[in-house]
Amino acid sequence: MKLGRLNHVGVAVPDLAKAIAFWRETMGAAQVGEPFAMTEQGVLVCFMEMPGGGTQIELLAPLPGHCPIRAFLERNPLGGQHHLAFEVPDIAEARAAFEGMGKRVLGPTRMGAHGTPVFFIHPKDMEGVLTEIMESPR
Amino acid sequence: MKLGRLNHVGVAVPDLAKAIAFWRETMGAAQVGEPFAMTEQGVLVCFMEMPGGGTQIELLAPLPGHCPIRAFLERNPLGGQHHLAFEVPDIAEARAAFEGMGKRVLGPTRMGAHGTPVFFIHPKDMEGVLTEIMESPR
Repeated sequence: MKLGRLNHVGVAVPDLAKAIAFWRETMGAAQVGEPFAMTEQGVLVCFMEMPGGGTQIELLAPLPGHCPIRAFLERNPLGGQHHLAFEVPDIAEARAAFEGMGKRVLGPTRMGAHGTPVFFIHPKDMEGVLTEIMESPR
Repeated sequence: MKLGRLNHVGVAVPDLAKAIAFWRETMGAAQVGEPFAMTEQGVLVCFMEMPGGGTQIELLAPLPGHCPIRAFLERNPLGGQHHLAFEVPDIAEARAAFEGMGKRVLGPTRMGAHGTPVFFIHPKDMEGVLTEIMESPR
């Protein structure tokens, strides 16, 4: 199995509005998407593109209640890099391949922020990097 | 000031040979560069491209002796995401802009792994993300 391009870098932030202002004003993000809630995952999400395009930045802030981003922010109160997301052409094939290698896939395959199915793999099995595998957006 | 594209994601690894094997075999990296030492920074470096191109992954392993990557690995023994590197057309202009915003630039501007000048900015001033600013490779 071969993965495709690095679709986005997930960055956890404690305050989404403040983070969007930072990426817009300090970092000069070229396009800032409309923030939206992913209630199943307990997160508010906002995608940004830098000038020149390429890999996006995904800001992730916790919704009220328990969610993995809140746990991450308890360890890293300022926020920080959370995960790397790589594209694959076929999510079921990719999941079977990673499971076949004995990698710990976290939970079920579910709908991701780009409207295609995704799953996550435990960082302990991925050289310390929490890894999202997502079917390429169409 | 506007930054350009996300050039690479820096990933700290305790064992470069093992990490290269992982990225080649498990992740299917399309191109794996020749590892090289940056003795001034105390690191071994290897750049990788995923199929489809785009933002590269930079593996960073410590050379013997003290270096920031060794300190990072003491806190994160498995390794993990270390920094995000964004391109700019003019490094001196970018440095003046970040310093003018009161951001803590870490050390002098120096030659980076792509042969263009770079500097780093403290994560506490960058929403938790250790940020490399690099002049675009020619």
